[in-house]
Amino acid sequence: MTQYAHIQQRAYDANMQLPKLGLVLFTFGNVSAADRTLGVFAIKPSGVPYEDLSPEKMVIVDFDGKTVAGSLRPSSDTLTHAVLYKHWENIGGIVHTHSTYATAWAQAQRDIPIYGTTHADHNTVDIPCAPPMSNEMIQGDYEYQTGFQIMDYLEKKGMNYEEVEMVLVGNHAPFTWGKTAEKAVYNSAVVEEIARMAYLTEQIRPQVPRLQDSLIRKHFERKHGPHSYYGQ
Amino acid sequence: MTQYAHIQQRAYDANMQLPKLGLVLFTFGNVSAADRTLGVFAIKPSGVPYEDLSPEKMVIVDFDGKTVAGSLRPSSDTLTHAVLYKHWENIGGIVHTHSTYATAWAQAQRDIPIYGTTHADHNTVDIPCAPPMSNEMIQGDYEYQTGFQIMDYLEKKGMNYEEVEMVLVGNHAPFTWGKTAEKAVYNSAVVEEIARMAYLTEQIRPQVPRLQDSLIRKHFERKHGPHSYYGQ
Amino acid sequence: MTQYAHIQQRAYDANMQLPKLGLVLFTFGNVSAADRTLGVFAIKPSGVPYEDLSPEKMVIVDFDGKTVAGSLRPSSDTLTHAVLYKHWENIGGIVHTHSTYATAWAQAQRDIPIYGTTHADHNTVDIPCAPPMSNEMIQGDYEYQTGFQIMDYLEKKGMNYEEVEMVLVGNHAPFTWGKTAEKAVYNSAVVEEIARMAYLTEQIRPQVPRLQDSLIRKHFERKHGPHSYYGQ
Amino acid sequence: MTQYAHIQQRAYDANMQLPKLGLVLFTFGNVSAADRTLGVFAIKPSGVPYEDLSPEKMVIVDFDGKTVAGSLRPSSDTLTHAVLYKHWENIGGIVHTHSTYATAWAQAQRDIPIYGTTHADHNTVDIPCAPPMSNEMIQGDYEYQTGFQIMDYLEKKGMNYEEVEMVLVGNHAPFTWGKTAEKAVYNSAVVEEIARMAYLTEQIRPQVPRLQDSLIRKHFERKHGPHSYYGQ
Repeated sequence: MTQYAHIQQRAYDANMQLPKLGLVLFTFGNVSAADRTLGVFAIKPSGVPYEDLSPEKMVIVDFDGKTVAGSLRPSSDTLTHAVLYKHWENIGGIVHTHSTYATAWAQAQRDIPIYGTTHADHNTVDIPCAPPMSNEMIQGDYEYQTGFQIMDYLEKKGMNYEEVEMVLVGNHAPFTWGKTAEKAVYNSAVVEEIARMAYLTEQIRPQVPRLQDSLIRKHFERKHGPHSYYGQ
Repeated sequence: MTQYAHIQQRAYDANMQLPKLGLVLFTFGNVSAADRTLGVFAIKPSGVPYEDLSPEKMVIVDFDGKTVAGSLRPSSDTLTHAVLYKHWENIGGIVHTHSTYATAWAQAQRDIPIYGTTHADHNTVDIPCAPPMSNEMIQGDYEYQTGFQIMDYLEKKGMNYEEVEMVLVGNHAPFTWGKTAEKAVYNSAVVEEIARMAYLTEQIRPQVPRLQDSLIRKHFERKHGPHSYYGQ
Repeated sequence: MTQYAHIQQRAYDANMQLPKLGLVLFTFGNVSAADRTLGVFAIKPSGVPYEDLSPEKMVIVDFDGKTVAGSLRPSSDTLTHAVLYKHWENIGGIVHTHSTYATAWAQAQRDIPIYGTTHADHNTVDIPCAPPMSNEMIQGDYEYQTGFQIMDYLEKKGMNYEEVEMVLVGNHAPFTWGKTAEKAVYNSAVVEEIARMAYLTEQIRPQVPRLQDSLIRKHFERKHGPHSYYGQ
Repeated sequence: MTQYAHIQQRAYDANMQLPKLGLVLFTFGNVSAADRTLGVFAIKPSGVPYEDLSPEKMVIVDFDGKTVAGSLRPSSDTLTHAVLYKHWENIGGIVHTHSTYATAWAQAQRDIPIYGTTHADHNTVDIPCAPPMSNEMIQGDYEYQTGFQIMDYLEKKGMNYEEVEMVLVGNHAPFTWGKTAEKAVYNSAVVEEIARMAYLTEQIRPQVPRLQDSLIRKHFERKHGPHSYYGQ
């Protein structure tokens, strides 16, 4: 098991952030951390309370969803993680939560409109909400198809997974990802806060306009791209 | 008192979870834990602050609502617990809270519509809200009648208490149950979160449709039934 | 100062409950505790952060609002407390906060409708919201007049201060009272929670009916009056 | 670096208050503290998590925005701070956050109407929301122009920065200031709470009137001006 200890530790640390950030009730969430060289990821075991987790309990799974090491059953969402790792070569971590506000938008089956710079600091577009899956996809290999539903919707919208690192799945909840599991956790807190602010914004002013293009671009470029000047 | 120590401990532990989960203000809630062999349950004493509770203070009551052991007066909702234990043979724990969002739905006298998979992971139906009781039932043996109001409404809706483990009582608040007191507490946190998400969903999109049948079935079967694959 | 130590301690303890219950931001609240025999009350000094308070810092004031002991200036709301103590002979504690939801109802200048049993456990009537004061009252001895505004509105509504222990002052915020400072603090947490639930209830169902009379009476009598059976 | 230690300490202490007051997620906020004699201010380094901050990490910047001391890059909002210090001679601290409710009002591009005494205790006017900046301002020296946008809007509204110590920038978020960094932090918590209460007030009563003039003046004068009687 020694060769997987680094991603088990990373997955464990990232999973433990979810309750601290207020993003999960009970076990309603999971994080995975991948090692591209080994071609596997470590993921939370299914239904185990956060307080009972330890690094060694993280299950090792390959990018086809086959368990490679670990005695526990992996998260029931494991196949969704596997599909995304397999097709998106530059991600190293994935998070799924049922965080309250982001899930409410997913249940409303609406993209989250870009209303301010908090949103633009992270995305230049509305946060996409993939439509609920078809009956065929659901009755088939559901979690596997969830991964394709996410990828197909981003492609349809012309979005790149390296630029847009968060999505809602209609009627379900958010998925986020990033170069590392830590970044994916960060994104899951960001989508929750953006979802909350957008909800409040529409309550305060129902027909509020979206953010103007120049401000979208400015804020995103402050944090990202060749001329970014945010951070150290 | 020794023969009741196990359910007193169980009831105590479960009661202490309510403030930790943010489900109660002051003493606005109570949990009981039953022993089917002994034909009794242990329940929180009435109006005692959570910080003053101890296992020995849990009152022992039989399924007709008669106090069998304990020097304190049992919860004012004891008769509701007794009726449910008497008629539903396979439950081992009951919880009553006035948690904020679930209570708001009860006050609105509305079933909580099934809008997403967080809901479907636990129920295949809208969470039922029993109508407010008639004047006759209220003026009679109120808490006793509350139990019948709950049972009658589930029966009218064609619901089985082993499948649907949570209900709202119109104008009042939620009741939940389960095979154990722990599971009943879990359900009381679940109904609060589902209530909160459903409220937000309707705010974000007023005429939002309910979840499609295939997704309801899929998510419920992931967690329950012969082919479940959630948990260990 | 020794003869006031008991009410200083009581006022101090009660004041320290406000931040713990999430009812105050910074110094936006105050509690007083009276000794009817001595004809005085102890009240929080004005603008002193809760973490800097100590029992000895509580200022002793008589029922005409004159400072009797203490080197600090008493709360700017002291005259309101004094007027209520002077006219309502059976109260021993008063609380004023700007708690979020109760204050929002006060700003909306609306009584809080009785929508459920959580409300009925404490009041048989809508929680009264006294109208904003006249320009004359405001430009005169404002805090003194606030006390009369509260008393006048209760009288106009035919309410008894021993039955209704909480009020909103329009455009301002809640005041609560009780036989002891502890009970008054309890009431200030109750009015905040009732305000929050009523707000959510109206959001979930805009034209929701008020609670039926039989249920109002039942729940109030469970907790209060000669046949009460709540608590020990 | 010794000569800047006092403002570094002050800026550090003030920055650490933001997460405690629930005003920031991750690094979404910054505080600066100025020394008028030295003509510089200490400000949070950009993108450094609060738990990794220390007084020595605060960057020293002059009122033209030039870094004078410190090895880290200052907050990306540094130029906005510099402009305000340069033009407003009597302020000693500035805070910028993306606190949830204040940011939602900024995204709605609305002034926060004065609905109650909590608001009037701090401002006699609606809390101003400067309109989103023009494309030219955004594409130019954005953070520098943000400072001018704030100043121009206050001037247009006939407001004095020594009386109105908080503003929303449309589509962006709140800025607050004060004689000290501590006071500016206090103001950032106040604007968040006022924003939350105003939102709830409008939900509870959509066409609610603003506060009457006599009450506005009374509450403000209780806390401010020659006849104030709040505090010690």
